[in-house]
Amino acid sequence: MRASHYFIATLKEAPADAEVTSQKLMLRAGLIKKTAAGIYSWMPMGLKALRKVERIVREEMNRAGAIEVLMPAVQPAELWQESGRWTFYGPELLRLKDRHDRDFVIGPTHEEVITDIARRDIRSYKQLPKHFYQVQTKFRDEIRPRFGVMRGREFVMKDGYSFHASFEDLVREYHNMYATYIRIFTRIGLQFRAVAADTGSIGGTGSHEFHVIADTGEDDIAYCPDSDYAANVELAEALPASKVHGVAKQALTKVHTPGVKTIADLAAFLKIPATDTVKAIVVEAEDGAAVLMLLRGDHELNEIKAQKLDGIKSPLTFASPEAIAAGFGANPGSLGPVGFKGRVIMDRSVAAMSDFVIGANEDDYHYTGANIGRDFPGPELADLRNVVAGDPSPDGKGTLALCRGIEVGHIFQLRTKYAEAMGARFLDENGREQVMEMGCYGIGVSRILGAAIEQNNDARGIIWPTAIAPFELVICPVGWSKSEAVREAANALYTDLTEAGVDVILDDRNERPGVMFADWELIGVPHRIVIGDRGLKEGSAEYQGRRDEAATAVPVDGLAAFVLEKLRA
Amino acid sequence: MRASHYFIATLKEAPADAEVTSQKLMLRAGLIKKTAAGIYSWMPMGLKALRKVERIVREEMNRAGAIEVLMPAVQPAELWQESGRWTFYGPELLRLKDRHDRDFVIGPTHEEVITDIARRDIRSYKQLPKHFYQVQTKFRDEIRPRFGVMRGREFVMKDGYSFHASFEDLVREYHNMYATYIRIFTRIGLQFRAVAADTGSIGGTGSHEFHVIADTGEDDIAYCPDSDYAANVELAEALPASKVHGVAKQALTKVHTPGVKTIADLAAFLKIPATDTVKAIVVEAEDGAAVLMLLRGDHELNEIKAQKLDGIKSPLTFASPEAIAAGFGANPGSLGPVGFKGRVIMDRSVAAMSDFVIGANEDDYHYTGANIGRDFPGPELADLRNVVAGDPSPDGKGTLALCRGIEVGHIFQLRTKYAEAMGARFLDENGREQVMEMGCYGIGVSRILGAAIEQNNDARGIIWPTAIAPFELVICPVGWSKSEAVREAANALYTDLTEAGVDVILDDRNERPGVMFADWELIGVPHRIVIGDRGLKEGSAEYQGRRDEAATAVPVDGLAAFVLEKLRA
Repeated sequence: MRASHYFIATLKEAPADAEVTSQKLMLRAGLIKKTAAGIYSWMPMGLKALRKVERIVREEMNRAGAIEVLMPAVQPAELWQESGRWTFYGPELLRLKDRHDRDFVIGPTHEEVITDIARRDIRSYKQLPKHFYQVQTKFRDEIRPRFGVMRGREFVMKDGYSFHASFEDLVREYHNMYATYIRIFTRIGLQFRAVAADTGSIGGTGSHEFHVIADTGEDDIAYCPDSDYAANVELAEALPASKVHGVAKQALTKVHTPGVKTIADLAAFLKIPATDTVKAIVVEAEDGAAVLMLLRGDHELNEIKAQKLDGIKSPLTFASPEAIAAGFGANPGSLGPVGFKGRVIMDRSVAAMSDFVIGANEDDYHYTGANIGRDFPGPELADLRNVVAGDPSPDGKGTLALCRGIEVGHIFQLRTKYAEAMGARFLDENGREQVMEMGCYGIGVSRILGAAIEQNNDARGIIWPTAIAPFELVICPVGWSKSEAVREAANALYTDLTEAGVDVILDDRNERPGVMFADWELIGVPHRIVIGDRGLKEGSAEYQGRRDEAATAVPVDGLAAFVLEKLRA
Repeated sequence: MRASHYFIATLKEAPADAEVTSQKLMLRAGLIKKTAAGIYSWMPMGLKALRKVERIVREEMNRAGAIEVLMPAVQPAELWQESGRWTFYGPELLRLKDRHDRDFVIGPTHEEVITDIARRDIRSYKQLPKHFYQVQTKFRDEIRPRFGVMRGREFVMKDGYSFHASFEDLVREYHNMYATYIRIFTRIGLQFRAVAADTGSIGGTGSHEFHVIADTGEDDIAYCPDSDYAANVELAEALPASKVHGVAKQALTKVHTPGVKTIADLAAFLKIPATDTVKAIVVEAEDGAAVLMLLRGDHELNEIKAQKLDGIKSPLTFASPEAIAAGFGANPGSLGPVGFKGRVIMDRSVAAMSDFVIGANEDDYHYTGANIGRDFPGPELADLRNVVAGDPSPDGKGTLALCRGIEVGHIFQLRTKYAEAMGARFLDENGREQVMEMGCYGIGVSRILGAAIEQNNDARGIIWPTAIAPFELVICPVGWSKSEAVREAANALYTDLTEAGVDVILDDRNERPGVMFADWELIGVPHRIVIGDRGLKEGSAEYQGRRDEAATAVPVDGLAAFVLEKLRA
C-alpha cells in the first residue's frame, strides 16, 4: 500500500473522554473513530488489524474441526422466552420492537439461535458431534461503556457452540478448544494465561478464561510460574498451612487499645507485624444468626468462598451493628472468639498461629497472647481468604505469583441447560431420545486489539505484535519529492517486499521525517526502513524495530532479504 | 473438506411459506435457515458462497482504490436528525432506545456515519478524493419481508461512499465504479445489465442500477441487444415515430359501440387491431383542470413521464368521474379530443396514425376515421408511454428488447445532499471552504446469491457459477465403506486437488449414489467426479458438469489434470 492512496489521520491529543491507554492510542492513531458512547467505527488500519485477528481465529477454528456459520444480529424474543433468558437477562440485553410491534433483541450471544438450528437439523447421533462458530457483530448495552473497544457496546466476537451425544465427548471437545485457544493467542503473539474460572482443573466441571497479561487489566490472577496453574484470585484455593501452630508461650492479656479500629491501627499501636494479629468478621447464617469468621490480620476475606460454606447466607451478608452488639457486647474493631457462644469459622492460616492478638469483645480492648484451644474452643477450619503472592500453588508445583489480566476468551461446558429448555434432542444408537450436551467458546475479537495494546505500548505509541499489525513494515523515504535516487530505492524495496507477500506501506506522502516517524511509531508498525540520500551515498539504509532504541545501518544491497529475515525472526 | 466432517442437511420439501425458487432451493439445500420473518442464519455452505461473493467484491473495490472500513450497525439518532432522515425515512428504519432512553437506529445505510467521519477527519483538498467502503450487516424493517435473502430484513451489503473536491472528480469516480461493478458481476459469473436509473447516459446526473437478468425479476428492463443501452422500462425514452401519418382516407363517422369500455372491447367489437385505436386518459393539471392524454390503443401510459410534464400535477392524478363528465359530457370508455376545449397532450406514436378510432365524448359511441388536424387541432406532442419490444433504442443503435431483472447494485451521485446538511467541508487550494461532493455505491451481497440462483437453476436444484459455488467440485465415491480401491482413488484425487487449491468436497458419508447425487445437484456444485469399482476396473471415473445431460468417462490416470482443465474453462 502507498500512503498517498491510503487514509492516515493521526491526532496529537486523544479526546478528553478517553480513559485508558489502548483507547487513547487507538483514537490518536486513527484506528477507530467514536460514533456514539461505546460504539466505534473501524477505520482502515484498525480494521486491517481486526481482520488479521479474525483470520488467525478462523484458521485455527477450522483446523480444530469447527464449521463457520453466520447467525443474525436481530433475534426474535420467542427464542429467548423459551430459554428463559428473556426474563433473566438484565438491561444489557437490548430489546426492541419491529414495525409490527413484535419483540426482538440484538444478540449479545447466540445460544438460543444455534440451539434452535440444532434442534431442527440434528436428529441422530450420527450427526454428532458438531461445532458451529461465527465471527459476528454483537451488542451489549453496557450501563457505562468505556475503555474503547475493550468494553464497547457493539463489538466483534467469535462465538462457537458444540453439540455432543455424551458428556465425555463434550469434555473431549473442551480439551480440543483449550488447545486451540492456546494456539490462537500464541499465534497472535500475546502473553496470556488460561485461567480456571471455577476449578483449577481442565476436567469435568469446566470453565476457563483466557487472559492477556497487562498491568492495566481488570482481573486479578494468581498463577504458578513453574506450572500452567492459573486462576482468578477469587477462585484460587489457599492451601492449608504447612505447619501446625506452636506451643503457647504468652498468657492471655487484655490490653487497652483506645481508638484502634483496624488491623493497621492495631499493629502500629502494639508495634507488631499484622501477621501476629487475627481479624474478626461477623456475617449472617442462613437462619440469621451471627457467625464469626477469623483470618490472619494481613489476609483478605474471600466473599465467594465464604458464601459457599454450608449454612452461610448467600450472597454473603455482613451482620448489622445491632446484631454484633447483641452477640458480642462490643462494636467492630474489638471483636474476637473469646467468650462468643455462636458459630466460629477460622481460615486455615490462623490454625498455624499462636500467641496472637485478637479483639476482646469490649470496645477499645484487645487480647494479646491468645491461643486456640486454650483460650477458646478450636473452631471449624475453612478456606476463607484470597491467595497472596508466595502462597503454595494448589497444584503443588511451586508458589503463586499475582498479575492482572484482560479476559479475551472463555470456554465453557454448558451441558444441557439450553438443549433441555429448548428441546434439542437426538436419537442415540439404541433409538432412545437424549438431550444434547453443549459447549460454548467465545473470543472477544475486537477486545483483543485493546488488550494487545495495553500489553504492548510505550510513550511513543502502540507496539503491535507483527501477526496483527496493520502493516508489518513501513518504508519511510526521506526527501521523496526531491530525490529520484530515494524514490527509486524506496519503490524497488516496496516492489520486492510486496511480491514476497510482506504487508508493507510506503510513506510517499512527502512528509518530514519527524512527522513520518511520529505517525508510524504512534500507529505501532513493528518494523521500519528509512531510505535517504545521505545513506544511499554510502550504499546504506536504516532499519529500526519498534522496540529498538536506535536505528542500525543496513546495506541497500540485499535490503529486501534483510527485512524478510527480520520478519521471520 | 470431507463431508463427514462437515454439515450437510438437505430437505426433501421447502417450507410452505417459501415463495420463490431461490428461497425454496436455498432452504432445501440447507444453505440458510430461517430464524424469523426475513431474518436468516447462514449455514456453512451458504456462508461459503456468501464469502466468495464478498471476496470478489473486496478485491475489485481495493483494486479500484477504495479503502475498507467497518461502521457500526447501531447508529445514534442525532446523526439522522442532522441529515433530516430521522423524519423522512419511513418505518423501514428500525428505531430503538438504549437503556438510558437515548434514540438509535439499526442502520439500513451509512451516509450519516461516514459523513460524520469525513467532516471530522478531512479538512484539506489534499486529503481528497477518498472512497471508503464496507461489507456490513444491515437491517431494513420491510413491511412484508419475502423472497428469502432477496428481500430480507437483515442482509449483507457492500456500501461505499466517496468524497471529492469537485463534481468533475465525482464523475471520474462514478465511471471508475461503473467499470468496477462490471468487473465484479462479470467475475461472479452472472448475466447482468447496467441500467440507467434516471437518464440513459453515464454522465453528470448519474444513477445506475445493476440488474441480474432473470425471468423472475421484479423489475422490467428495456435494453438494446446491439449496444450497452439499458434502462428501467419506466425510464426508457420512446422515440418519436419515424414516419409521419398518412393522408386521411376515411370520413369521421360516429358509430354506436354499446357496452364498449376498453380498447380490447373496442378492437373486438369493430374487428380492427388495437393499433388502429387511440386511448384517452384524463389527468389533473396543477390548477386542477382536466388534461386529456392520447396514446395508441396498445400502448401503456407511463405515469412517471406524464407527471414530469410542465403544468401536470405530480404525483400524477387521474381526473374524477365528475370532472370528466363536466369536461367531456361522457364517461371514461368513450372519451376523445373531438370538441374538447381543454389541454390535449398526444404521445408521439399517435402522430403517425390516420383514420383511427377514438371516443366520441358520448357514452357508447366512438368515431371511426378520425384524423389529426382535420377533426381536432393538432395537440402538443410528448413521450407519454412505456417502451415496448421492437421500439428503436434511444441510443440509435438498434431496437429495444425487454427482460426482467433483479437489482443487485446501485451507483449514485449524491452530490452535496449529506455534506451540506451535516457540514462536511474542506479548504480548497485557495484556502476557501467548500462543501464536499459525494457518491455512494451499493451492492446487495447476500441478495446476489438469491439472484444467481433465480438465474441459474433447474428441476434438480441450484446451478452455481463456479466462482461463488460453495464447493467447486464434489467427489462422489460409490461404495466408500466397501471398496478400498474406491477409497484410495477418491482420497488420491482429493489430495491432489486440495493441493492444487481447488475447493473440493469428498462425500465420504457412505451414502447411496442416488442420495449423494440428489444432494449435490440440489446444492448446485458445478462439477462432479464419480469413482466406483466398476469404472476403476476399466481405469476410468465419471465426470459430469452440473448442466450436462449425462456423465462422461474419464481415465483415472490424469484425473486431477482433467478436473483442473475443466475448472479453468
